[in-house]
Amino acid sequence: MDKVDILIIGSGPGGYVAAIRAAQLGLSVSVAEKDDLGGVCLNWGCIPTKALLKSAQALHYSKNSKEYGVEISGDVKPDISAIVARSRGVAGNMSRGVEYLFKKNGVNLIKGFASIVSPGEVKITADDGSVQHISAKHIIVATGASAASLPFAPVDGKNVISYRGALVPETIPSKIAVIGSGAIGSEFAWFYRSMGSEVVLIEYLDNIIPLEDEEVSAQLSRSFRKAGIKVMTSANVKGVSLDSGKPILTVETKKGVETIEADVVLSAAGVRPNTSGIGLEEVGVNMERGKIVVNSLYESSVKGIFAIGDVINTPALAHVASAEAVKCVEGIAGMTPEPIDYNNIPSCIYTSPEVASVGITEKAAKEKGINYRVGKFPFTASGKAAAAGERDGFVKLIADADTDEIIGAHLIGYNVTEIISGVVTARRLGVKAKDIINTIHPHPTISEAVMEAAAAIHNEVIHI
Amino acid sequence: MDKVDILIIGSGPGGYVAAIRAAQLGLSVSVAEKDDLGGVCLNWGCIPTKALLKSAQALHYSKNSKEYGVEISGDVKPDISAIVARSRGVAGNMSRGVEYLFKKNGVNLIKGFASIVSPGEVKITADDGSVQHISAKHIIVATGASAASLPFAPVDGKNVISYRGALVPETIPSKIAVIGSGAIGSEFAWFYRSMGSEVVLIEYLDNIIPLEDEEVSAQLSRSFRKAGIKVMTSANVKGVSLDSGKPILTVETKKGVETIEADVVLSAAGVRPNTSGIGLEEVGVNMERGKIVVNSLYESSVKGIFAIGDVINTPALAHVASAEAVKCVEGIAGMTPEPIDYNNIPSCIYTSPEVASVGITEKAAKEKGINYRVGKFPFTASGKAAAAGERDGFVKLIADADTDEIIGAHLIGYNVTEIISGVVTARRLGVKAKDIINTIHPHPTISEAVMEAAAAIHNEVIHI
Repeated sequence: MDKVDILIIGSGPGGYVAAIRAAQLGLSVSVAEKDDLGGVCLNWGCIPTKALLKSAQALHYSKNSKEYGVEISGDVKPDISAIVARSRGVAGNMSRGVEYLFKKNGVNLIKGFASIVSPGEVKITADDGSVQHISAKHIIVATGASAASLPFAPVDGKNVISYRGALVPETIPSKIAVIGSGAIGSEFAWFYRSMGSEVVLIEYLDNIIPLEDEEVSAQLSRSFRKAGIKVMTSANVKGVSLDSGKPILTVETKKGVETIEADVVLSAAGVRPNTSGIGLEEVGVNMERGKIVVNSLYESSVKGIFAIGDVINTPALAHVASAEAVKCVEGIAGMTPEPIDYNNIPSCIYTSPEVASVGITEKAAKEKGINYRVGKFPFTASGKAAAAGERDGFVKLIADADTDEIIGAHLIGYNVTEIISGVVTARRLGVKAKDIINTIHPHPTISEAVMEAAAAIHNEVIHI
Repeated sequence: MDKVDILIIGSGPGGYVAAIRAAQLGLSVSVAEKDDLGGVCLNWGCIPTKALLKSAQALHYSKNSKEYGVEISGDVKPDISAIVARSRGVAGNMSRGVEYLFKKNGVNLIKGFASIVSPGEVKITADDGSVQHISAKHIIVATGASAASLPFAPVDGKNVISYRGALVPETIPSKIAVIGSGAIGSEFAWFYRSMGSEVVLIEYLDNIIPLEDEEVSAQLSRSFRKAGIKVMTSANVKGVSLDSGKPILTVETKKGVETIEADVVLSAAGVRPNTSGIGLEEVGVNMERGKIVVNSLYESSVKGIFAIGDVINTPALAHVASAEAVKCVEGIAGMTPEPIDYNNIPSCIYTSPEVASVGITEKAAKEKGINYRVGKFPFTASGKAAAAGERDGFVKLIADADTDEIIGAHLIGYNVTEIISGVVTARRLGVKAKDIINTIHPHPTISEAVMEAAAAIHNEVIHI
């Protein structure tokens, strides 16, 4: 039986980062992966969706070229098979990149389905049925999550699809109904609308992108509606009938019950952790609602079994999984890593306009009884936004009125997903609104709006 | 004679910001402007160039649409008059925006050429020759700068143009020679190349964008050459002959003397401060090399006469002028503003790839004998860059090896001008490489490369 210091189950942004960090620290490490190297993020999530959305952007510029002074004499249309092929190519390259990094760092990859036999032993079954057992001082469970299935609309890959199907359409549907308006649902709503589909975006809660600040949500609704997306909120899908050959949704809203016929339904109602059938219960790992309970060093209730990423009760985001991977491995290596500040995790949605945020929403600040001040700066007043022809959105900062510290940043607009990380870094260092005002931001940039929003908190804003 | 607390000469990003801040603080303020409201930045600099470059980007996506899976059946070509009209429209809107802000804040605008009669008195001559005198407790000189003229290639607006002419071409020249490769020269080189012109970029020093880190400069050279721009460095323009009807440049390089024929020459060899003929010498204001000498509150050697922006010896950048405007006015109002940290001024160049930097270059660190460490992360290893199809460039961070503080950040790549401000804010707060490593950056973004570059400093980088 092969012996390693660490056996990692799953090679997503949790697993592969853990493996590389472990190898850097001189630990012997193997990774078991039953599917594509790189996990959902690289192969069926973050990366290929961004490739699709880039094609949507190129299509947008081509279709609206006249606005920018570019003449196109013929027709402009998306070639969906080329768009999907490009997206798959990008994902494939990234996956091969991880393969290269594994080789370079001496990480051993084992293809197959892993399950825990006992603390210290994992069994891996390959596609051809062959089985190997690995002895591992430490096991890290990084198996990620899968699309949650809606009981009334089970994914069949044809009438009802999940993000996997939505990533590889053979044709552009005339009409798509998207159930769930989180990051996944909203990004696909935008993508399919860009491709020319009629799109209905259905959200059970009162606002789309319900985890975001309400003003951001309202702005995205306006932008989506302007783009022709039908946005339904407080909308309860009562059922999806396939009797007529095409899916027909029955949706209850405050206005009453509506039926919506679509070519295809995208089920985007969240994800559930992949924690079943891999031996966790059998070896006595403590679970809560399907998630593995871990301590501050990501060790479960069973000594030697660790868990990171979407299988534990922290935000199900790739960048969180990667950070947890590093901390977990450093702990195993006997280091004392700085704990993750879960109050300082950024979130991005790559629609157009983009959405990026960190910290608490205004509603949460209100509910917590915090004495806060808000500063807001609209992109209609930004020179760079005007030059770019991208004037939707704003920057909203929330500061603690007593300490002036930035407790929430909520951005919606062009390129804001590239701006939020600076706010996150500054927040780590306890940034106050006055610090941002006194930092010279380059002109002309979209990021200047952060400085102006901070100035608005202190009634010193120049450009509104 | 009208009396005001502050009379500001010039309405650029120094002058107009000073005026608005002064009005916010309850001071009576008038602004004298001889030309367009908003100065060069709004009308002939930062803003209209960004509009042109946006058109170049839209053209790029349209021309290369196939790469993104977008089919265009006909021809794609720039309509230069529409591109210029869009750019002028954006500039005009911004200028009207300043007009609105002046009205809203009660700032009085006086159209005409201002000169200082004595401390406390300014004479303003309107276009129609009418003259008014204003009594002002404080005078702020914010007259900005103009293109420096090359003795061997005086700007005639036809054969030899400055940035003003380059902003409003009537046709796309077949071939343009750009003398000077700073931000202005490089941005126009990129713009005209995008429009289809043959472009020669001529730099006297050893590297293009000579103020930037040498590796960044080398990367931009590579990218420019890949795009078909002829880049000449250590190139001394000995003369420009107009005898043949078209300009012919004689250029001396290490390889010998070369003659280059072009349709037009863009003179982009820096700017000189607008400090002549406005009464400064007459009232005894202390000057050095054409620039006004000021103290830490931007007051000149003559009490009551202040100066900000391109007329003083600080970086000639719009965002510096605006910051100096706020500090200067706050000082006049009796506040004690925090001094500007001139070691923490970002610089951006909006070519493709973009360039953004703050702090010292590696060469400067070496020359100063600083014990430093470098971390570099290439965008070829970035998932977001791959998805965007924009893989040129890198992030290079320089940390003090003893303190781990980030003393220089040098970025070249897609969208990096939006990322640098976060580094500037963090640097204000004394950010160390370890702080950046321990800040969770959102995935997938271009900004993650900053985290990876910081990790590279400590040999903890994951993705290379």
